[in-house]
Amino acid sequence: MLSKSKIKLITSLTHKKYRDETGLFVAEGVKLISDLATTFHCELLLYTPQREIEVRHLQADERISVEEKELHKISAQKSPQGMLAVFRKKTPVKITATALSGQLCLALDEVQDPGNLGTIIRIADWFGIDQILCSPETADIYNPKTVQASMGAIARVRTFYGQLPSLLSGQGDLPLYGTFLEGASIYSEPLTTEGVIVLGSEGKGISEATERLINRRLFIPGHPAGEVASESLNVAAAAAVVCAFFRRTKA
Amino acid sequence: MLSKSKIKLITSLTHKKYRDETGLFVAEGVKLISDLATTFHCELLLYTPQREIEVRHLQADERISVEEKELHKISAQKSPQGMLAVFRKKTPVKITATALSGQLCLALDEVQDPGNLGTIIRIADWFGIDQILCSPETADIYNPKTVQASMGAIARVRTFYGQLPSLLSGQGDLPLYGTFLEGASIYSEPLTTEGVIVLGSEGKGISEATERLINRRLFIPGHPAGEVASESLNVAAAAAVVCAFFRRTKA
Repeated sequence: MLSKSKIKLITSLTHKKYRDETGLFVAEGVKLISDLATTFHCELLLYTPQREIEVRHLQADERISVEEKELHKISAQKSPQGMLAVFRKKTPVKITATALSGQLCLALDEVQDPGNLGTIIRIADWFGIDQILCSPETADIYNPKTVQASMGAIARVRTFYGQLPSLLSGQGDLPLYGTFLEGASIYSEPLTTEGVIVLGSEGKGISEATERLINRRLFIPGHPAGEVASESLNVAAAAAVVCAFFRRTKA
Repeated sequence: MLSKSKIKLITSLTHKKYRDETGLFVAEGVKLISDLATTFHCELLLYTPQREIEVRHLQADERISVEEKELHKISAQKSPQGMLAVFRKKTPVKITATALSGQLCLALDEVQDPGNLGTIIRIADWFGIDQILCSPETADIYNPKTVQASMGAIARVRTFYGQLPSLLSGQGDLPLYGTFLEGASIYSEPLTTEGVIVLGSEGKGISEATERLINRRLFIPGHPAGEVASESLNVAAAAAVVCAFFRRTKA
């Protein structure tokens, strides 16, 4: 049986305030939990009897077998997959100016939707970009929706929250890319193998103070050029396109 | 005041069953409603007093001013934007074999997440792809999450639901593309200006019967090649990358 205090703890972790206070976060599903367990310390593991074999290899301070309907009550998922874990967050390591050179990095300026953030972390992971700077208004990487959408990529991609203008200033010649409606076509613009790619919020785009630092302006052309009715791409879709073009190798 | 029967109708439309029975669907937000109103017939428009000027130009059979907290109760959005509309769905027009030639088209094989579906419709719209075939198991384009994520693109992109193998067979030489782990790199493969791009479900990929019809196998390489820890891209992220490479123009 799951105690009332544990239920209360788990459900409280949907709120950032309690994740910050306790230093804990929740993940659900066999595959995701196994992925995260390679990097994060698991404090509590709940599983339905059908999942017993699959949890055997997982390290956890405490493990409790629960009935499916009990799990359903505390799960944030529509169809809980028989396993829920409470992990300890990691202390973020500051990404310094020197850590930015020699590689590609993303910077997210107010990407507030937690699902989009998780998808972007997963995209970064796929394209071998292992550092993401996040403005303070960007969603929390430990938001349950972000954790689920990242599909385990939060175990591999480093994130650091801070004011983007101060994190990005004083970078010397490092290319700082941003996408803008009047930018150069990503189809034809030569792209570098190092630099920071700034992605703005869907509503407001890139903030003024950050925009001032950007020295390479890119654009993802719609089709047919100049006649696109849609106003923009979803920020995660734009991230995927931009990352793919940065990583494309010529035939 | 909003009658109880209207409240009941609106909240029932989160379920496909009631959308099918009534032929209606819900959209929220000023921008989205204005976009959809150019194509869909609006039966009911709810707005808060602050939005009065913005609704003046919109055609609707009935319009009701409601208090913000009243709107909050029936809204599916966390932060309702002061406007909710009930639109009439359109009768889908069959996309026939002849309609597929000469242009690019997407086919979705069990893309069950409504948010992903909406994002894909928005991506298609951006890249000038105005026809999407959907397998019967694909989410409903009138699901509120799909409508919101599409950002109005459902007004411009035609969708048709049916068994993909029968819709796609007998296409002669028409290129039928699909993404597979062992496909040819999308970075270097020559891509045609006509054809169907099949996107599979995240869990199961492309179904066997549909896969048999595919004659061009593509792959979005991760980075570094062969060392990617992530197992796949989100289907909407993959759609964005694929569409961008099909539409890219050489410098």
